[in-house]
Amino acid sequence: MTENLFGYFAAACTTIAFIPQAIKVHKTKEIQDISLGMFALTTIGVLLWFIYGIMISSLPVIIANFITFILSLYIFIMKIKLDHPKT
Amino acid sequence: MTENLFGYFAAACTTIAFIPQAIKVHKTKEIQDISLGMFALTTIGVLLWFIYGIMISSLPVIIANFITFILSLYIFIMKIKLDHPKT
Repeated sequence: MTENLFGYFAAACTTIAFIPQAIKVHKTKEIQDISLGMFALTTIGVLLWFIYGIMISSLPVIIANFITFILSLYIFIMKIKLDHPKT
Repeated sequence: MTENLFGYFAAACTTIAFIPQAIKVHKTKEIQDISLGMFALTTIGVLLWFIYGIMISSLPVIIANFITFILSLYIFIMKIKLDHPKT
């Protein structure tokens, strides 16, 4: 039981973590210091976690990684968009 | 078997993801666009994942989150340090 509590709390932290970064990017439109590689790998990684969640039928893994995928993808797209503005 | 392959590949991506960000911060010493909240929550979250890994005796969870913890903690400390330089 204690393990599951740690697991759920851990999942909540690492999922919620992307919210302040997404809000910061949305508000400031400043993204220069953020690594493209980090959010490219994170987006791919959480998509794989999401598929893994479906495969093992784990709802917490599915939900947590779906939310993180959306947030990470948003930051990744903003990174590409803001680093290469249309001239 | 296919599930495990997805799981390991997912864990590799989300762990390796922090390396380019840590390198970028180390090289540029620029951290303004990075959210303090994101790396505070990530550091706490992966520490909890690490403890969870010990509890459930899962070596991949332990190793992946130990590496991420070190990288995330480094970015978090640099964020505090660079945002509040000694006068």
